Amino acid sequence: MSDFELDARLRHDCHIIGRLEFCQLLLLNTAAVPWFVLVPETHTTEIIDLDPSQRLRLWAETDEVAEFVRSNFPVEKLNIAAIGNVVSQLHVHVVGRHCNDYCWPDVVWGRVSDEQYTAERVAEITALVQRQLPVRG
Amino acid sequence: MSDFELDARLRHDCHIIGRLEFCQLLLLNTAAVPWFVLVPETHTTEIIDLDPSQRLRLWAETDEVAEFVRSNFPVEKLNIAAIGNVVSQLHVHVVGRHCNDYCWPDVVWGRVSDEQYTAERVAEITALVQRQLPVRG
Repeated sequence: MSDFELDARLRHDCHIIGRLEFCQLLLLNTAAVPWFVLVPETHTTEIIDLDPSQRLRLWAETDEVAEFVRSNFPVEKLNIAAIGNVVSQLHVHVVGRHCNDYCWPDVVWGRVSDEQYTAERVAEITALVQRQLPVRG
Repeated sequence: MSDFELDARLRHDCHIIGRLEFCQLLLLNTAAVPWFVLVPETHTTEIIDLDPSQRLRLWAETDEVAEFVRSNFPVEKLNIAAIGNVVSQLHVHVVGRHCNDYCWPDVVWGRVSDEQYTAERVAEITALVQRQLPVRG
């Protein structure tokens, strides 16, 4: 989408990993849990206002990222959410949770850990994504 | 699904409104925000482990409930989530949020208001659902 621009807060809080067919794929900069964010390139802010084909595409890409998270991190439960109370730009969280993580069983929203990734770890995760998911740079 | 049984915690915390094609539709007993819960009749606990047709059905029913919430309550933002860290039985939250509600812009999970519905209000909401959504009793 030519006039799409990633929200400034998402850009600040996340590493940009690449682009899927419909969504930009971001990694929140908190190393405490694997926390990805899909941002569909649209100005629509509610999932129910997407075209039917866009909804299917969003859920298909969410599923792919969820599979990726479960396959590559210690995950007991996937947390999937579209919230958007603070950042209204439509985005879907995919968070891999484990009973030993910093805020289990509470939700992570509003309780972000300040444990940041090293540049090396971000590069490793990016390489993993590039091997396993159909991302463009 | 003949051997499906609703989780005891969900049964305790919610009013059972009816059944959609795939999901039981519950209303969380907190009157502070319109908060519905869809519980697909399955033993699978992750959305990505549902059959493709079940995933589509779950999202279609989630969309229907989200449309219903936005049409009948004062909603500025829909919050849609599958979490399941405490109740592992697969369930999807559909919550209508408003900038004047009790915990805006924070998420509602972990911050449930103890403002309960009257029996009359539950009956009203149930009747609204029955008029607008394809529920069985």
